[in-house]
Amino acid sequence: MALASGMRLSARALLRPWSPLRGKALGCTEPAAGGGNGARRFGSQRVLVEPDPAAGVAVMKFKNPPVNSLSLELLTEFVISLEKLENDKTFRGVILSSDCPGVFSAGLDLTEMCGRNPAHYAEYWKAVQELWLRLYLSNLVLIAAISGACPAGGCLISLTCDYRVLADNPKCLIGLNETLLGIIAPFWFRDTLVNTIGHRAAERALQLGLLFPPAEALQVGMVDQVVPEDQVQSTALSVMAQWMAIPDHARQLTKNMMRKPTVDRLLKQRDTDIQNFVSFISRDSIQKSLQMYLEKLKQKKG
Amino acid sequence: MALASGMRLSARALLRPWSPLRGKALGCTEPAAGGGNGARRFGSQRVLVEPDPAAGVAVMKFKNPPVNSLSLELLTEFVISLEKLENDKTFRGVILSSDCPGVFSAGLDLTEMCGRNPAHYAEYWKAVQELWLRLYLSNLVLIAAISGACPAGGCLISLTCDYRVLADNPKCLIGLNETLLGIIAPFWFRDTLVNTIGHRAAERALQLGLLFPPAEALQVGMVDQVVPEDQVQSTALSVMAQWMAIPDHARQLTKNMMRKPTVDRLLKQRDTDIQNFVSFISRDSIQKSLQMYLEKLKQKKG
Amino acid sequence: MALASGMRLSARALLRPWSPLRGKALGCTEPAAGGGNGARRFGSQRVLVEPDPAAGVAVMKFKNPPVNSLSLELLTEFVISLEKLENDKTFRGVILSSDCPGVFSAGLDLTEMCGRNPAHYAEYWKAVQELWLRLYLSNLVLIAAISGACPAGGCLISLTCDYRVLADNPKCLIGLNETLLGIIAPFWFRDTLVNTIGHRAAERALQLGLLFPPAEALQVGMVDQVVPEDQVQSTALSVMAQWMAIPDHARQLTKNMMRKPTVDRLLKQRDTDIQNFVSFISRDSIQKSLQMYLEKLKQKKG
Repeated sequence: MALASGMRLSARALLRPWSPLRGKALGCTEPAAGGGNGARRFGSQRVLVEPDPAAGVAVMKFKNPPVNSLSLELLTEFVISLEKLENDKTFRGVILSSDCPGVFSAGLDLTEMCGRNPAHYAEYWKAVQELWLRLYLSNLVLIAAISGACPAGGCLISLTCDYRVLADNPKCLIGLNETLLGIIAPFWFRDTLVNTIGHRAAERALQLGLLFPPAEALQVGMVDQVVPEDQVQSTALSVMAQWMAIPDHARQLTKNMMRKPTVDRLLKQRDTDIQNFVSFISRDSIQKSLQMYLEKLKQKKG
Repeated sequence: MALASGMRLSARALLRPWSPLRGKALGCTEPAAGGGNGARRFGSQRVLVEPDPAAGVAVMKFKNPPVNSLSLELLTEFVISLEKLENDKTFRGVILSSDCPGVFSAGLDLTEMCGRNPAHYAEYWKAVQELWLRLYLSNLVLIAAISGACPAGGCLISLTCDYRVLADNPKCLIGLNETLLGIIAPFWFRDTLVNTIGHRAAERALQLGLLFPPAEALQVGMVDQVVPEDQVQSTALSVMAQWMAIPDHARQLTKNMMRKPTVDRLLKQRDTDIQNFVSFISRDSIQKSLQMYLEKLKQKKG
Repeated sequence: MALASGMRLSARALLRPWSPLRGKALGCTEPAAGGGNGARRFGSQRVLVEPDPAAGVAVMKFKNPPVNSLSLELLTEFVISLEKLENDKTFRGVILSSDCPGVFSAGLDLTEMCGRNPAHYAEYWKAVQELWLRLYLSNLVLIAAISGACPAGGCLISLTCDYRVLADNPKCLIGLNETLLGIIAPFWFRDTLVNTIGHRAAERALQLGLLFPPAEALQVGMVDQVVPEDQVQSTALSVMAQWMAIPDHARQLTKNMMRKPTVDRLLKQRDTDIQNFVSFISRDSIQKSLQMYLEKLKQKKG
């Protein structure tokens, strides 16, 4: 099967000169070294890209140890890498995954939201918006291969995908748990969740900041499939083959028709949303609450 | 039970002078020949109507062999027959069914959308809109008795009903599979599906052009009940009795309240929707894709 | 556990001078008699309030025998009691329950809607709106502990809660059964139901006036949990503990974000909604239908 052989190629690719694992500078590219299949390295320091040109698929892996916090740098690098894949006709699908064991992404980087100035908060929030906007209306088939914890912003990223595969491991909790930190998910997080699991389940999940274990995540519709941990990637690839069997143009127009109204709600008030975030996050009470949380995290590590 | 005896009447009716099976001309009517129960024949060449005045129910059967393609003629005849039933106080409920074995309806007639001129495309699309508008806000109780394949436009018709009964036969696939043909479902197809199975399931089903087998169709909510093939009609009649036990006025106002916002979205931009369709379907790439599909179909038959 | 000991306190409280069971006058309050815990009696003739200040929880019980019809008096007293709890920082959660065996609430009081003048209908409807507006956006955690029949307006009240626990008793039917009486649920009843069980299930339930037995209510999402009758209260308290573990501010903002768009739809046309109700309910046909229903009810009792 073309897709499976493509994957073997991709695995071997890790040992090659153009292997994404060796690329460090943001956005640098070079021609494929072997096979003449037109493979190029994308990716950057914090986002590995393992291209499989023969299959038309790339695997993007967050690599921001220890927990793939969505720092400003990561967001910027990710959007650039994604844009390159979007603009490269070779690729029709992307699998989002993690290079950090035990975690897909811990979500937004609290250090970007704590003890900084309003201009920084605004810049950061704009980058978070940009990530969502690019992912949610991506023309690529996006599949999340989730083999670790997937809270908050990590969950949001997975919700923008066309399909979610979750490892059957009790540590693989997934959900928008913002309220547990004393903060609230913005309206477009809400919209994305409501679109995925419906109004009632979203209302309960968001208020309680629920992190669903795999079986519950599947039942509520937060993910589409739960498989043994060692089958997450292969399942994602099988599903990708199903999605890539559909004519791109019709699939993309259909995806756009489903999601554009949700995206338009943010686009209509993007600046207001940034101002709201900056004003909310700058409050003394919120800053104190975030600082306490960050110190707890440090003590855990220490 | 009144309803059951009504059905026996209806079965015998096939042998009577006013039997719908004998009517050929569009919309011709004649007084009831027997029983003095006011039964009249509606129906036309491509739409059989088996009235059961005693029960207040009529069975409408698509009869456009081999696969009940929704040709312009069929659409026109169907809307006229439906309107007559709507305006006849005798009838409070209609069961939609098929006279062609193995298929409910194959959906829109590709020959109406391929190799014709823009004026024809516009006329055809207006007729498709009209069908949906009449069905989705019908004051009658509409129940779909589906004993065959139910793709695309056939699925849309079933989704406009108040209840769907599907035969438990693996050939009875149901879904909006437009993307498989390289075309896209219009926004009011989308709305009807989202109203029925929710946003996420609709998003996946529409992008992949999924045709659900009975068990999956039931699980996702595409149909309300799956029964053995020989019980589809009797189940539809039992369900009809439940719906007809509700005071008409309250039920109709409630149905209207649920569905009018969806209908209004099309009414507000009906002409634009026609123009969009004509412009889309007239594209060379789409015409080629449809021609290839039609030739494949011919080869299958040959 | 703080919550459990709080409940023991609350049980003992029934024997104390400030026990809500002894309060008769609307809205009278007095300082706590024992324990110095600041407990006060709220409540009124038709609404018992059992406060548990230590736990931060109050239990509100409808007490309008025989079936807790939502009379104008009950609505008024309920809203006043609820407002007091909202304004008292001691309380963060309220459990809604019934003091009448076998019924949560039979719903709107038909005697307020039958044989009166338009001004009375308008006043009554405004009170029904007020009840919904206060409950649906309440800052308190609201949990419905339903140990009896829960039709129509009783169901609506439960749907405004954050969580619904239903007794596993076949008599505990729940649903918006307005069509069975020949009347229709207003659009904000519809919105509340659609938010809870989705569009398709709501469409079917509202048209048929379905009253769901416990297992079906759970399956369709009308309630969140079904437990043996003697565990309804204790389950409600356990669930309350889970909800109260969330920081109030974040939870309240999130609840508001989920529900405000629905509330705004009524606020934008509150007067029109009243006029529509008065005009509808004043129709001769509706009045006759309600009178017949009321007479049937009297005959049942006689």
